[in-house]
Amino acid sequence: MPSSLKNDRLLRALLRQPVDATPIWIMRQAGRYLPEYRKLRELAGDFMTLCKTPDLACQVTLQPVERFPLDAAILFSDILTIPDAMGLGLSIIESKGPMFEYPVRSAQQIKKLGIPDPETDLRYVMDAVRLIRKELDGRVPLIGFSGSPWTLATYMVEGQSSKNFSVIKELLYDQPQVLHELLEKLAQSVALYLNAQIAAGAQTVMIFDTWGGVLTQPAYQEFSLTYMQKIVGQLQREMNGQRIPVILFSKGIGDMVIKIAETGCDAIGLDWMQDIAQVRSKVGDKVALQGNLDPAVLYASPEVIKKEVGKILESYGKGSGHVFNLGHGIHPEIDPEHVAVLVDAVHEFSKPYHRES
Amino acid sequence: MPSSLKNDRLLRALLRQPVDATPIWIMRQAGRYLPEYRKLRELAGDFMTLCKTPDLACQVTLQPVERFPLDAAILFSDILTIPDAMGLGLSIIESKGPMFEYPVRSAQQIKKLGIPDPETDLRYVMDAVRLIRKELDGRVPLIGFSGSPWTLATYMVEGQSSKNFSVIKELLYDQPQVLHELLEKLAQSVALYLNAQIAAGAQTVMIFDTWGGVLTQPAYQEFSLTYMQKIVGQLQREMNGQRIPVILFSKGIGDMVIKIAETGCDAIGLDWMQDIAQVRSKVGDKVALQGNLDPAVLYASPEVIKKEVGKILESYGKGSGHVFNLGHGIHPEIDPEHVAVLVDAVHEFSKPYHRES
Repeated sequence: MPSSLKNDRLLRALLRQPVDATPIWIMRQAGRYLPEYRKLRELAGDFMTLCKTPDLACQVTLQPVERFPLDAAILFSDILTIPDAMGLGLSIIESKGPMFEYPVRSAQQIKKLGIPDPETDLRYVMDAVRLIRKELDGRVPLIGFSGSPWTLATYMVEGQSSKNFSVIKELLYDQPQVLHELLEKLAQSVALYLNAQIAAGAQTVMIFDTWGGVLTQPAYQEFSLTYMQKIVGQLQREMNGQRIPVILFSKGIGDMVIKIAETGCDAIGLDWMQDIAQVRSKVGDKVALQGNLDPAVLYASPEVIKKEVGKILESYGKGSGHVFNLGHGIHPEIDPEHVAVLVDAVHEFSKPYHRES
Repeated sequence: MPSSLKNDRLLRALLRQPVDATPIWIMRQAGRYLPEYRKLRELAGDFMTLCKTPDLACQVTLQPVERFPLDAAILFSDILTIPDAMGLGLSIIESKGPMFEYPVRSAQQIKKLGIPDPETDLRYVMDAVRLIRKELDGRVPLIGFSGSPWTLATYMVEGQSSKNFSVIKELLYDQPQVLHELLEKLAQSVALYLNAQIAAGAQTVMIFDTWGGVLTQPAYQEFSLTYMQKIVGQLQREMNGQRIPVILFSKGIGDMVIKIAETGCDAIGLDWMQDIAQVRSKVGDKVALQGNLDPAVLYASPEVIKKEVGKILESYGKGSGHVFNLGHGIHPEIDPEHVAVLVDAVHEFSKPYHRES
């Protein structure tokens, strides 16, 4: 393990190597529930300015790591930076979510899309990664990430968050080849983007497939999983002698989660509807598992939070290969004190599961 | 089978008795995608007036049956009539969904809630059922329905549609006994309500658990499934010598669907993320299955609709026990011509699966 890392629990757990305690990080750990985030966000004026200014992105990334004994930092950025770099004109309005000024819907529009060059078109992300690595100074590893091709495509085609996904699904059912062209371009772009993050210093990478669960099972495999698998196959898996673990996360996909273990990834993210014990028994020692506390547990009292942490640790059982996390991003109304309780409980309660016996 | 019914395919399929073709009805078949519905809705002024005026509810219920050769009518009503009758003040605004003027959140508020008497407090529903039965005159059976206790509780506690279910989940994790009291009252109310619909003429009943899928697996069993099972145990299962089949539908619950087969219900509704062949192989001959076409398929061309119908029929395979439906309600933008294609395709393509060989 990286001798330069003071805390390498995350990387060890992702590679199913022994650890002293289960590592924890939290999806959206740098975010609106933190008063120090809200302050910076107000200063920046809008969300994309935070993302596009490496110094601000770095400050935001470090905030939760400075407040809590988390086992990882995750790059502060948005999942939609790639379509933005393709020229679709991203804006993020707090009450409405992401919006694209120029959605793409026709074969012609898709043909015209270029593959962004990470070090020029997404330079601000790479600069942020380099700066964060420097500022982290080996305290914890840095996680890089991207949206999955399918999830990026939903926003690019719909133009915004969707309830029914009617536009992209009409494309999927009526002109699957056109959608495949878009997904192919996105898979190439994501692979380049994640490799550039790895070259810039990301020590593990995660692909977020937020909307994989709105597809039928065959469509999930054809339009989402296949492209994540392609990306996994193209990623730089070693850097400076260190293995770079890859985490895939599709939300709301039920049974299909087992298929992810066959993509060649190192770990699978689990939402809170998954039974972590059952998934472990099915995927065996193939991959590590990350998750899967219901984010709503953090609304409850410290006693309840501790009890629910205990249940998940017990459900996963003995041995390495578990990265504790929520099953989805932390909600903006959560009390940071409750996060402190969560992080401590994971470290404290997990120790017995890692003792050799 | 009821000698008075000209088309008893639905009831036969729900009881896994032989049929000549797979029956089909469509969730929200009486709804905004129909121009004749939009006309009546405009005349009525608002949605709840349509529900609360038996003559209008009857007209709306019959509209899709008159337009398409569907195998069932479903009572036009709302899933939230029970909490409305409890005094929570329901209003339905098209852009926002349902809203309650007086949400319930405390043990005290829950204690005060009464169990509505169906024939007085929900008389308009029973009058609509009687009128629809008369007007249907045995053409097809009439389906009655209710929301599930858990799903009703989400709206009653949150006060409206929710993204994160933060208020009810805080209750669930922090004060589970208070939530159980509410669910207990709702289960009693739903059982009375459905029995009254059956007495008034509903020939089968369905419980919609739209939000079961936002729960962890243990919480789904404790807070949703248990109460649906209680209701099933209290329902009038025979009327005038006819068996009254009960259908349970929880959306987005993955693996948990298998547990529904153990409640004593006759049929399980499947969303489009379920693999109908796999579910059939797991539940065997215990229950019938209803579903599970992706509602978005109806955006596609007639050729694609036919192909996707063929896939589901083939996936279910030979024999009775399948009621064709969408995996969720039909979207308002769907072209009624596409619905005609769907209904005909199901009847035509399913015949070979029901021939004795």
